[in-house]
Amino acid sequence: MTNTYQHKPAQQPDKRNRAKMLISCPDRPGIVASVSHFLYEHGANIVQSDQYSMDPGGGMFFIRFEFDLNDLDTELPVLQEDFVRVADRFEMKWHTFRASRKKRLAVFVSKEDHCLLELLWQWQAGDLEADIAMVISNHPDMRGLVESFGIPYHHIPVTAETKAEAEKQQLEVVSDKADLIVLARYMQIISPKFIEQFPNRIINIHHSFLPAFVGGKPYAQAYQRGVKIIGATAHYVTEELDGGPIIEQDVQRVSHRDNVDNLKRIGRTIERVVLARAVKWHIEDRVLVHQNKTVVFN
Amino acid sequence: MTNTYQHKPAQQPDKRNRAKMLISCPDRPGIVASVSHFLYEHGANIVQSDQYSMDPGGGMFFIRFEFDLNDLDTELPVLQEDFVRVADRFEMKWHTFRASRKKRLAVFVSKEDHCLLELLWQWQAGDLEADIAMVISNHPDMRGLVESFGIPYHHIPVTAETKAEAEKQQLEVVSDKADLIVLARYMQIISPKFIEQFPNRIINIHHSFLPAFVGGKPYAQAYQRGVKIIGATAHYVTEELDGGPIIEQDVQRVSHRDNVDNLKRIGRTIERVVLARAVKWHIEDRVLVHQNKTVVFN
Amino acid sequence: MTNTYQHKPAQQPDKRNRAKMLISCPDRPGIVASVSHFLYEHGANIVQSDQYSMDPGGGMFFIRFEFDLNDLDTELPVLQEDFVRVADRFEMKWHTFRASRKKRLAVFVSKEDHCLLELLWQWQAGDLEADIAMVISNHPDMRGLVESFGIPYHHIPVTAETKAEAEKQQLEVVSDKADLIVLARYMQIISPKFIEQFPNRIINIHHSFLPAFVGGKPYAQAYQRGVKIIGATAHYVTEELDGGPIIEQDVQRVSHRDNVDNLKRIGRTIERVVLARAVKWHIEDRVLVHQNKTVVFN
Amino acid sequence: MTNTYQHKPAQQPDKRNRAKMLISCPDRPGIVASVSHFLYEHGANIVQSDQYSMDPGGGMFFIRFEFDLNDLDTELPVLQEDFVRVADRFEMKWHTFRASRKKRLAVFVSKEDHCLLELLWQWQAGDLEADIAMVISNHPDMRGLVESFGIPYHHIPVTAETKAEAEKQQLEVVSDKADLIVLARYMQIISPKFIEQFPNRIINIHHSFLPAFVGGKPYAQAYQRGVKIIGATAHYVTEELDGGPIIEQDVQRVSHRDNVDNLKRIGRTIERVVLARAVKWHIEDRVLVHQNKTVVFN
Repeated sequence: MTNTYQHKPAQQPDKRNRAKMLISCPDRPGIVASVSHFLYEHGANIVQSDQYSMDPGGGMFFIRFEFDLNDLDTELPVLQEDFVRVADRFEMKWHTFRASRKKRLAVFVSKEDHCLLELLWQWQAGDLEADIAMVISNHPDMRGLVESFGIPYHHIPVTAETKAEAEKQQLEVVSDKADLIVLARYMQIISPKFIEQFPNRIINIHHSFLPAFVGGKPYAQAYQRGVKIIGATAHYVTEELDGGPIIEQDVQRVSHRDNVDNLKRIGRTIERVVLARAVKWHIEDRVLVHQNKTVVFN
Repeated sequence: MTNTYQHKPAQQPDKRNRAKMLISCPDRPGIVASVSHFLYEHGANIVQSDQYSMDPGGGMFFIRFEFDLNDLDTELPVLQEDFVRVADRFEMKWHTFRASRKKRLAVFVSKEDHCLLELLWQWQAGDLEADIAMVISNHPDMRGLVESFGIPYHHIPVTAETKAEAEKQQLEVVSDKADLIVLARYMQIISPKFIEQFPNRIINIHHSFLPAFVGGKPYAQAYQRGVKIIGATAHYVTEELDGGPIIEQDVQRVSHRDNVDNLKRIGRTIERVVLARAVKWHIEDRVLVHQNKTVVFN
Repeated sequence: MTNTYQHKPAQQPDKRNRAKMLISCPDRPGIVASVSHFLYEHGANIVQSDQYSMDPGGGMFFIRFEFDLNDLDTELPVLQEDFVRVADRFEMKWHTFRASRKKRLAVFVSKEDHCLLELLWQWQAGDLEADIAMVISNHPDMRGLVESFGIPYHHIPVTAETKAEAEKQQLEVVSDKADLIVLARYMQIISPKFIEQFPNRIINIHHSFLPAFVGGKPYAQAYQRGVKIIGATAHYVTEELDGGPIIEQDVQRVSHRDNVDNLKRIGRTIERVVLARAVKWHIEDRVLVHQNKTVVFN
Repeated sequence: MTNTYQHKPAQQPDKRNRAKMLISCPDRPGIVASVSHFLYEHGANIVQSDQYSMDPGGGMFFIRFEFDLNDLDTELPVLQEDFVRVADRFEMKWHTFRASRKKRLAVFVSKEDHCLLELLWQWQAGDLEADIAMVISNHPDMRGLVESFGIPYHHIPVTAETKAEAEKQQLEVVSDKADLIVLARYMQIISPKFIEQFPNRIINIHHSFLPAFVGGKPYAQAYQRGVKIIGATAHYVTEELDGGPIIEQDVQRVSHRDNVDNLKRIGRTIERVVLARAVKWHIEDRVLVHQNKTVVFN
């Protein structure tokens, strides 16, 4: 099949020398001073920083820097090596990311396509700075669509009996080809064994406004209860079903006039917008996780 | 104490001859035709009608008429008497209300004043077309405030032991002086016995976005869970705690930067706006209840 | 080229016998009674009605009925013929529409595809109950995309010199094949001559929150002015540029952190959502126009 | 008259040693490093920092620090003196504020009280950490209300002839007793001479969604145009009428059913919320102004 639709790469400013640094550590005087002094001495120009202190008197501290560094590919490893001393002093958990190194996504879907379509669409419009490495589905339905975007499609059926085997196959296919797994209305529960391979790197869209209406048929539940607002929640997947750290939520007003079908239709629009925002923030390295909460520097 | 703040009556168009009619009945052909024909023949001019059919093939039907009728005080009783034939034919539950007959509110409060203040304020601005007949509290704190608006204040303490006695006292004070009870952050649970005196005539504001975070400390729970949106819910009080028909909900976006105090502060603003809207729609006879849902013709 | 993506027809309840009736007339007693009585006598079962009276004491009155009528194709003409007497009596402007008769859309685009994509994808998801009869563009760029949906694509270039000729060609292509023209980011001004062929049947999406920022570069203007909220407006096209009746608007919060590119990206999401909603309401016959305002029964 | 309503001071964490520093300067490498290093060396513990760079390649840079410093009253002057060297090197405009030093407000009103009431009630609830030093009005109407909060009320009538004289009187009354002037629906135009005494220290609430509907009768205009969303804008007052830097905006959805009175009523709610938010951010030193835009670190 021909690739009928061309991906337009985003016309972004040159980001070859741009890097991002995310740090979490116990709060203490001197952190910002030390890190920014360190970056300055290594020739890095801070273009953006965000920080958040949970509680000045002894909580956690989170900081995100975006900086430019000449000759990044050569100099970043040096900077990383040297930073260990600062990190050790403040007991930091830290990561650096090069802006030019796009995250690779593996998108999991079942039969509903609206969330996948939104991602494809934002990607082809150049609004999603990631590579969509593959789509994996327990159904064959979306092969034509996905391949028309030039993206590989893996159909891996899942039944109660074959579940363990199917996950093994999924892991093989994904192997080291994806940095983030996006569950775009994938209707299978992921096993703890799978989840621990991708800690805080699996994003799910929950078709409801968590923590309300956990579980199945949320729109039918919402209709029964006559709620006036419905919503959707994007969160990282943890072992606790629907209980992982929330990245983004949004809502829309509804009324008694909206029947279950309408609620579903409205819900689809919220779901795709919320999931796309969460994915965007993750791939831009804007999300830190502490315990069961996120800090989103957006 | 002097009444330091004068209530400005709203400058509304003359509504002496305006009435409202609310009808629920099983859906069936001919309802609208029959009622509107009936009203026309009785000289009533329909100025507004809203209807909603839950499911054309056999569900419930709800309709609200606003009409003008010359010499309303004399003619409405005639119309009501004659309407019985239409009502019987369609198995209708129906009510009529004269627009000039303001609803009388009894507002129950405890120690937090923001919801009460919003009602007082909208009332003095002429935006709430009701009479605030009294404020009842289990604490003495707001007497000065309430009396400065020229409104009677009843301090009826409640303890675990005196609860039954206190409710008896409340009922005596309210007796036939109030059409609607508004729980404006009243922190006592109302007994089923009290509730059955005011079916669908007690409105509560729940300090959270139901059905999430039922129960105490919702803002602490919301903080723990790292939600990105908080909300409030106004509902009629039924025997099922926090489970009655929802009249109105609203939300506001929050972030990790909002600590529990901030969430409470933001929550207060949502609570007072949501409660005031629900009260407004009730006193304008815009809310019908069926099973555990509302139909709000706003 | 193969049609790579199949349109899923919406699984709607059977609407073969469903019709809609839209009426505007000077307000006067007895309108609702007369029309609903008329419908009842002709065997029509009203399943939904909405009405709005601009000003009871002498303004305009708008009403919309949805009704079921056995054997609609045969009986509707009879009903229409008979209705003339009612219509004349109340000086009504009125229209009837059969629900089974889908509106046919001609979508005009230039180089930006986000609004077209939203329509195509809602259409293929079965959320847009219309036929997309054709896409017309002054550029060749989207032919592959459009034809992959099995929809005819007409490339009609427009220059200052050829404008009149191009519009003639457009009219020929559209001729009697479209009920509604959707300007989905079509960057040419439509001539009054063209507009008068489609009165209140051309919908445009304005890339800004009218009446603010009329004219070019709205997002740059919004950035300069440091606005905290941006929006989009869908309106019917009239001779007054960007001045036609507003059908729908929506907004999103932005901050000083959003540069012009971000504002454009956010704007794209609002634009496509707002346009799709306006189109949906039009094709469901929910929009009445009076002077330069709409009444939207949604 | 007795002060009938007591102000409850907010139960805030001890902020005696908390200070805030706001800096604007041309962007250049090393700013964050230098300032945070400076603060660290002076024993200041940064508890919050926010920064924004308009354009890394040569634009403006804005930063806000919140820090704790032992013995602030004694040590801040030292720190300020020493900081001059850093400030000069980077051509900084900078200010420091002690958190314990509450801003003093002079609130100007005319005849509409909703915005004043919101401020008074947030203040008495402890949500507005400021002192309301006085209320000034060109009408006598609100004296009772204001004095019942224990706040001085100055009635200074204004006519076309006495305007200059009245402004002189206002300036005398305010003199050095207020840090911020809040125009809470004050219906007189402030002269440039007055404005230049309070640069970026006069906040106005505009009863419409700027830049749309500048001028009189905005709600009537909104009704005529049939807009689907209305809003309000809080901005600093500059010589250009309604053209100063926007601090906050918000909106609410309306429909054709809302007549001009309804729009006004809805507008009042938006106005008071938007004004209160803008005042809150100003008194917490979260707003920087550059050219005609604000940077709001909220």
